[in-house]
Amino acid sequence: MYELGVVYRHIERTDSATADALVRFGSATVHEAMGRVGLLKPYMRPIYAGAQVSGTAVTVLLHPGDNWMMHVVAEQIQPGDVVVAAITAECSDGYFGDLLATSFQARGARALVIDAGVRDVRTLTEMRFPVWSKAISAKGTIKATLGSVNVPVVCAGAWVRPGDVIVADDDGVVCVPRERADAALQAATRREALEGDKRARLAAGELGLDMYRMREPLAAAGLKYVD
Amino acid sequence: MYELGVVYRHIERTDSATADALVRFGSATVHEAMGRVGLLKPYMRPIYAGAQVSGTAVTVLLHPGDNWMMHVVAEQIQPGDVVVAAITAECSDGYFGDLLATSFQARGARALVIDAGVRDVRTLTEMRFPVWSKAISAKGTIKATLGSVNVPVVCAGAWVRPGDVIVADDDGVVCVPRERADAALQAATRREALEGDKRARLAAGELGLDMYRMREPLAAAGLKYVD
Amino acid sequence: MYELGVVYRHIERTDSATADALVRFGSATVHEAMGRVGLLKPYMRPIYAGAQVSGTAVTVLLHPGDNWMMHVVAEQIQPGDVVVAAITAECSDGYFGDLLATSFQARGARALVIDAGVRDVRTLTEMRFPVWSKAISAKGTIKATLGSVNVPVVCAGAWVRPGDVIVADDDGVVCVPRERADAALQAATRREALEGDKRARLAAGELGLDMYRMREPLAAAGLKYVD
Amino acid sequence: MYELGVVYRHIERTDSATADALVRFGSATVHEAMGRVGLLKPYMRPIYAGAQVSGTAVTVLLHPGDNWMMHVVAEQIQPGDVVVAAITAECSDGYFGDLLATSFQARGARALVIDAGVRDVRTLTEMRFPVWSKAISAKGTIKATLGSVNVPVVCAGAWVRPGDVIVADDDGVVCVPRERADAALQAATRREALEGDKRARLAAGELGLDMYRMREPLAAAGLKYVD
Amino acid sequence: MYELGVVYRHIERTDSATADALVRFGSATVHEAMGRVGLLKPYMRPIYAGAQVSGTAVTVLLHPGDNWMMHVVAEQIQPGDVVVAAITAECSDGYFGDLLATSFQARGARALVIDAGVRDVRTLTEMRFPVWSKAISAKGTIKATLGSVNVPVVCAGAWVRPGDVIVADDDGVVCVPRERADAALQAATRREALEGDKRARLAAGELGLDMYRMREPLAAAGLKYVD
Amino acid sequence: MYELGVVYRHIERTDSATADALVRFGSATVHEAMGRVGLLKPYMRPIYAGAQVSGTAVTVLLHPGDNWMMHVVAEQIQPGDVVVAAITAECSDGYFGDLLATSFQARGARALVIDAGVRDVRTLTEMRFPVWSKAISAKGTIKATLGSVNVPVVCAGAWVRPGDVIVADDDGVVCVPRERADAALQAATRREALEGDKRARLAAGELGLDMYRMREPLAAAGLKYVD
Repeated sequence: MYELGVVYRHIERTDSATADALVRFGSATVHEAMGRVGLLKPYMRPIYAGAQVSGTAVTVLLHPGDNWMMHVVAEQIQPGDVVVAAITAECSDGYFGDLLATSFQARGARALVIDAGVRDVRTLTEMRFPVWSKAISAKGTIKATLGSVNVPVVCAGAWVRPGDVIVADDDGVVCVPRERADAALQAATRREALEGDKRARLAAGELGLDMYRMREPLAAAGLKYVD
Repeated sequence: MYELGVVYRHIERTDSATADALVRFGSATVHEAMGRVGLLKPYMRPIYAGAQVSGTAVTVLLHPGDNWMMHVVAEQIQPGDVVVAAITAECSDGYFGDLLATSFQARGARALVIDAGVRDVRTLTEMRFPVWSKAISAKGTIKATLGSVNVPVVCAGAWVRPGDVIVADDDGVVCVPRERADAALQAATRREALEGDKRARLAAGELGLDMYRMREPLAAAGLKYVD
Repeated sequence: MYELGVVYRHIERTDSATADALVRFGSATVHEAMGRVGLLKPYMRPIYAGAQVSGTAVTVLLHPGDNWMMHVVAEQIQPGDVVVAAITAECSDGYFGDLLATSFQARGARALVIDAGVRDVRTLTEMRFPVWSKAISAKGTIKATLGSVNVPVVCAGAWVRPGDVIVADDDGVVCVPRERADAALQAATRREALEGDKRARLAAGELGLDMYRMREPLAAAGLKYVD
Repeated sequence: MYELGVVYRHIERTDSATADALVRFGSATVHEAMGRVGLLKPYMRPIYAGAQVSGTAVTVLLHPGDNWMMHVVAEQIQPGDVVVAAITAECSDGYFGDLLATSFQARGARALVIDAGVRDVRTLTEMRFPVWSKAISAKGTIKATLGSVNVPVVCAGAWVRPGDVIVADDDGVVCVPRERADAALQAATRREALEGDKRARLAAGELGLDMYRMREPLAAAGLKYVD
Repeated sequence: MYELGVVYRHIERTDSATADALVRFGSATVHEAMGRVGLLKPYMRPIYAGAQVSGTAVTVLLHPGDNWMMHVVAEQIQPGDVVVAAITAECSDGYFGDLLATSFQARGARALVIDAGVRDVRTLTEMRFPVWSKAISAKGTIKATLGSVNVPVVCAGAWVRPGDVIVADDDGVVCVPRERADAALQAATRREALEGDKRARLAAGELGLDMYRMREPLAAAGLKYVD
Repeated sequence: MYELGVVYRHIERTDSATADALVRFGSATVHEAMGRVGLLKPYMRPIYAGAQVSGTAVTVLLHPGDNWMMHVVAEQIQPGDVVVAAITAECSDGYFGDLLATSFQARGARALVIDAGVRDVRTLTEMRFPVWSKAISAKGTIKATLGSVNVPVVCAGAWVRPGDVIVADDDGVVCVPRERADAALQAATRREALEGDKRARLAAGELGLDMYRMREPLAAAGLKYVD
């Protein structure tokens, strides 16, 4: 995070089987499975509804209004990666458009997560290249200052290291540290296994109050019913 | 509003015929018909476009990051209700997801209006369970602290009492006090009756300046035309 | 901008061939072609995805919560115009709905750009009358105070004069001064001519690093690769 | 809240001994003593540091950009009152300046709490007339539309009724319902009685962990220490 | 506004007698005297309380994160000027600190108004060099890209041309166009002449309702008093 | 950052001579000396003007609305430390008041940096215990959920590890990683040595254009002067 002007070519990616398997749970379940840490701030929104991805993070640290390093990070992308872009200060400029998306997609990137703006969103939507961003802006950027590639970054309030897993969907973006990816996968799997049954019972009209046995603790906490 | 730990089981709901009839006018017309009061702040947005509902409010007061009372309010829902959730402080967490939505829907709720976050929005959209919220967030909540059900609340800057009518659509959310629901329905009906004719005349090119006889008051106010 | 209570009937519109030709480039390319000036702030968002327009600006300056001048500006619309509405202070009220849209559309307006709120967005979407706005709000406005029509205005941080060209799409809204419209059109045309080839090369896997010959300047700037 | 154009001349004020006694505890202690309800949103800030007031609320409901009712509420002020001003929509205009402050002060008002802007803040500071507001703005207002005086209002997210007690200081603004003012006073008194001893023990180096006997519940919750 | 890379050396400054005379009225009175136009957005705040200045604008247009042109504008300052800095996109970086302030002060500048951040605010306060800004930030800027000096700019939502008068105090910042400076001065003088008498009457307990003869128009508008 | 329920008792603090020496440079110079990284977001503001501190970070990770771990971190404070508090989600509650400040001060803490709210600010100011925070709020917190102490945290967008150096003043808050503290100190010292001479020359009227030899690069970049 504190290094500028460096590109790390070799990073330790989470095992792809694990990274790929996390996609079907979505960000909410994975975030729960992680113990409720690792969520990027909720201002990060997808440019179109319905995208759901997971992948290994390659990171890029950029300066405000300068997307030079986007071209540098492109070379470091491997199939199955998600590019995570952080900026050294607040910026809403459009760092990324259809040309870069074409390049990223050709390199095998699954998505971009950027704590700044993006543009050409209609074309990106047609290309089905998903982006989670803070803003949409037609304003382009210059190419003048070095940042870094594959250093740990703070993106939208979360700490992301190269090789960590990113899970993103309509609910937001979660970062799973690579050391914890297997455990998160197992916890998410267990969590979801229970949900199907719960859903059926709730759909049949059973109350969460009964299903989760909440009536007693609520009464113990002092809840009073008034007729 | 000042009571915590209480559930009011019996509330005075607006007559369902009135509550149901308000749906077709939408929030903008109903808000006008009310004399321009009762609107929730415009940061309240629907999770998907096109939903339009009205219904009687059941209210729930929650603490930041704690959705325990969501399960308590579920039991108080009657068919035709809209759940209105207020938080005792600012919070963007995802208080509500597909399981609770399944339960609410099974109980007959038409929608949720929440001054906080919601998650599982893709599933909620597929279920066609509409939510108006301040945020979308994958972050879940704990179940630790008592709030209240069916007390008056301030939700997104509006005062909502149990049994009041909620009207919500793509333009926002309006609360109609139950004592004024009949009058609002009549005023909205009168208002809309006039609109069809106006729309036809405007579509034919007639100017509002002429249709509303504004030229004279504009001149009286001093408006000058410069060629 | 400093005149209140005045309507300028005759304005110098950008040549319609030029204004119309700019539409196909979109806001991002036109903004680049302008040298990165003229963009309205990125909080200006379209009420539905996919609209792309260009047209000549007719401007209206309004007071907070007062849309009286919207009816005055309607009369000044000519086919091919885009109405640009500025407010003398911050306001999120819904100044514009389906009746005014019917009138604007009948007069030949292509779109509305407003630094405030809009309502009836579902109907506007069905009418395919695009609006770029700061907010969506059911709250209506009064008709009490004079503003002006066809004076220069500051709209969402940009200076817009009557007759300038407005280009708007999913990426945002750009204002092209009429004196610079021809030059912007030429620059945008040149810019786009180069893009097809670039896209093909990037899609084939060529890196921007090579295509744009960035490796040398990056090395000169001190970029280091670590294996 | 839903009535416009009405002035209630007779309101039930909290007993002045109680209202006055609450001042010395400040907003934080009173808010705790209330069970953590009744706080206005933290964007409400004092125009100068160090003011600390309590008093009985007289309320005024205003329209955006219109301060006509400020003159109406002035007449309803009694010595010991705090004026609480709510707006029917978001507005940051300067509704209140040195002339109105002179009038309010002459009538015996102790402060103004307004969910909008204020101006002449240097003079107000010299006059020692405290204001808690959302904004400071030189922009004045018109006098055109009726609001109401002494109706219940939502001010900065809190429900305030005429006659309730307002407690405000550098930490913010709390509204104490008149029915609960005596209980709040007693609870605040008890709370504060305990604080002096605690402060001395903490100043001597005793840890809250020990003073509040937290070590056991922390261990029970699973806290682990790593050397 | 649309020119980049240009410095206009000769600008038409408002007569200094007029520019200087406006200072004593403050931003609120001058804004009223102007007919309520020309105010910069209220997020522009002074770095310390109590400063009150007027002066002729020299303008500078900067890029995000780049303060190169600050050194260029320094040369164009004449005694009695106020520097007005606009940025081509949103930025909160600290463009200005104690060294530049020393230079500006040596050139005779009275203040800086900047739609971005400033730093070294403790030293600036000790120097009594007032700044109105959007942010305070320790983050410095680079010197890489050309902007312009003495072109018209949009600063915090207001249109400012070189030579216009800036009036700033604790209530905010107003721009008076040079053509209207004399009229504004006269109007402000008239306005203030009336205020002393009004203040005395209000201080004596007379109500604005009577002094401004509002009772009749309020009754005509339908105001009702309820005992 | 990903561990909850853990307290690290032994951390590697930056050498106190280095940590202490950084205080006199202030956040802006230290941030420059670091190569412009490590700054907390500019929304972090001091509760009173004029405080300037440096110290070694002890960190605490808290949940929204829950300050239980504040008491746990108190025990880990050593003289010369600055407590850095991060929250797992957005929250503006008042986590810290005069009692905790008394305890922190007794333990030798120099300041608190918290990405949330604080209260009792008048007393804290009298105690001269400085706090940099996102908000001021009378709203207290509960003590129910475990966080962690002395784990790396993201605080206001910056990555802070236990033992890093915090430098804070009126311009904001910077985190200096312990490995880079010596280098930062040297760079800051060099930087400041140059400033005294520069300030004198600028005060004498010399232009930065000449002192920094900018005229040539500006001309090379294409800057044009127009008379």
